[in-house]
Amino acid sequence: MKTYFDCIPCLLRQTLDVTRKITSDEVQQEQIIRAVLKETSRANLLESPPMLAWRIHHLIKKLTGVQDTYQEIKEFSNKLALKMLPELKEKLNHAEDPLEMAVRLAIAGNIIDFGVTGDLDWRMVEETIQGALSASFDTRGLDLLRKRLGTAKRIVYLTDNAGEIIFDRLVIEQLPLDAVTVVVKAAPIINDAVMEDAKVAGLTELVKVIDNGMDAPGTVLSLCSPEFLKFFENADVVIAKGQGNYESLSDAPREVFFLLKAKCAMVAKHLHCQVGNFILKAGGHPQD
Amino acid sequence: MKTYFDCIPCLLRQTLDVTRKITSDEVQQEQIIRAVLKETSRANLLESPPMLAWRIHHLIKKLTGVQDTYQEIKEFSNKLALKMLPELKEKLNHAEDPLEMAVRLAIAGNIIDFGVTGDLDWRMVEETIQGALSASFDTRGLDLLRKRLGTAKRIVYLTDNAGEIIFDRLVIEQLPLDAVTVVVKAAPIINDAVMEDAKVAGLTELVKVIDNGMDAPGTVLSLCSPEFLKFFENADVVIAKGQGNYESLSDAPREVFFLLKAKCAMVAKHLHCQVGNFILKAGGHPQD
Repeated sequence: MKTYFDCIPCLLRQTLDVTRKITSDEVQQEQIIRAVLKETSRANLLESPPMLAWRIHHLIKKLTGVQDTYQEIKEFSNKLALKMLPELKEKLNHAEDPLEMAVRLAIAGNIIDFGVTGDLDWRMVEETIQGALSASFDTRGLDLLRKRLGTAKRIVYLTDNAGEIIFDRLVIEQLPLDAVTVVVKAAPIINDAVMEDAKVAGLTELVKVIDNGMDAPGTVLSLCSPEFLKFFENADVVIAKGQGNYESLSDAPREVFFLLKAKCAMVAKHLHCQVGNFILKAGGHPQD
Repeated sequence: MKTYFDCIPCLLRQTLDVTRKITSDEVQQEQIIRAVLKETSRANLLESPPMLAWRIHHLIKKLTGVQDTYQEIKEFSNKLALKMLPELKEKLNHAEDPLEMAVRLAIAGNIIDFGVTGDLDWRMVEETIQGALSASFDTRGLDLLRKRLGTAKRIVYLTDNAGEIIFDRLVIEQLPLDAVTVVVKAAPIINDAVMEDAKVAGLTELVKVIDNGMDAPGTVLSLCSPEFLKFFENADVVIAKGQGNYESLSDAPREVFFLLKAKCAMVAKHLHCQVGNFILKAGGHPQD
């Protein structure tokens, strides 16, 4: 997916968010914002939003020296999500179709904003989960995924954020564990999950976990390591979680199962769905 | 009010709106957006948002040659608001406090988004008006305004948008008409009211109407004509309608009565109120 004009105000809002987390010095904040505006005025809009976000965040890292702005938020998110895990597993134990329920819960994990300060609103969380379980959902993607999984020997699961990764574990546990490789980012970017988060989620004890060699908030293939690309290319099934992975892999040269909630108008437009829809959809451009 | 960092994504969203109204040519759209990003990266953030918006819109006018993007929308807004006028006057005829009700209706005119394509949702309009009549409202500003009006010989009313200007007429009709000067913009900017809109609203037959000599979406004193400034400085009472006038006149060197709904977080913060609040408040910096 290319970067739409509408992505630009949104990328600038993200810039403001991260800038304020890094420093309360308004002079430095202004320096960052001006630099990002200048960078964006020259941006290649054929690149995907996560690629542009990568350029912006690297510029901010260069200007400030701060490498991991969201570390505390990520730790907090993981802690909260882990607290919810037993109850979610209990729900799964009674599910008629555990894979579908796990997929729905993984999308719920994509919606819950763990990155809030202080305590989460637990009633809101419960409502989100209930909403995810009852939301209308085109199951054709799930049917195709189930078919592909039937014969798959190599499954790659691309994670999205910390906190959310614990919800992803519910889906991963439905897969043949010895066939699964879970993928995290190689270095911190926003609240994206890195190896440490996979460890906290208990995934490293469960399945093979690798990083993708880069730190864009998505999976920008041109930035990924050759090691990751081998896994990605040779997998029988790739599951990609969240908007960032959709934005960066919608034109990937292979089939990818995208698992996300369409949170913004541009992604919804690209997916031909409504904002708010729950999506499990095969995409990318299979070469054969 | 200075331009907050948060105003920047908002100004860029406005840029997108106006750009798409001017041209459907994506190459030209991209040229405009890049130019505005570059201009904004060098902006003086001590200037008010309407001053910055003025710079952006003039850049767009220079790049495209289009002077009045919103003409049709303004005509449509006026037509719709005029249709509502008899019913609003009927409400006023039964009001216990006509000035307060007129002020509330004028704020309702600030909320209703006339600039929609096709027909307005009349139920929504009715709800907005009812909401405006019952909204909680700090009447201390109104009390002070009433006191000032008691002895005022020169009253200046700074209008905001087309459509809305017809609602402003309800307030203006409560004032001593021979003391009133209504002010519009000298040239088109977004959907701000110009002389033609004052004519359509019937104001030119009712009171003196002048323009302020400039075309920023607010009242940027440094851009205004000497003729307007004389009226502004010598007035006993100045009433300024809408956010743009608040943003540009909150630091004016005289008392100004601001009449608006706080629509954005930055204006609300500056006014020490909540987003959505109805405001009639004396501000500016009286010199004596």
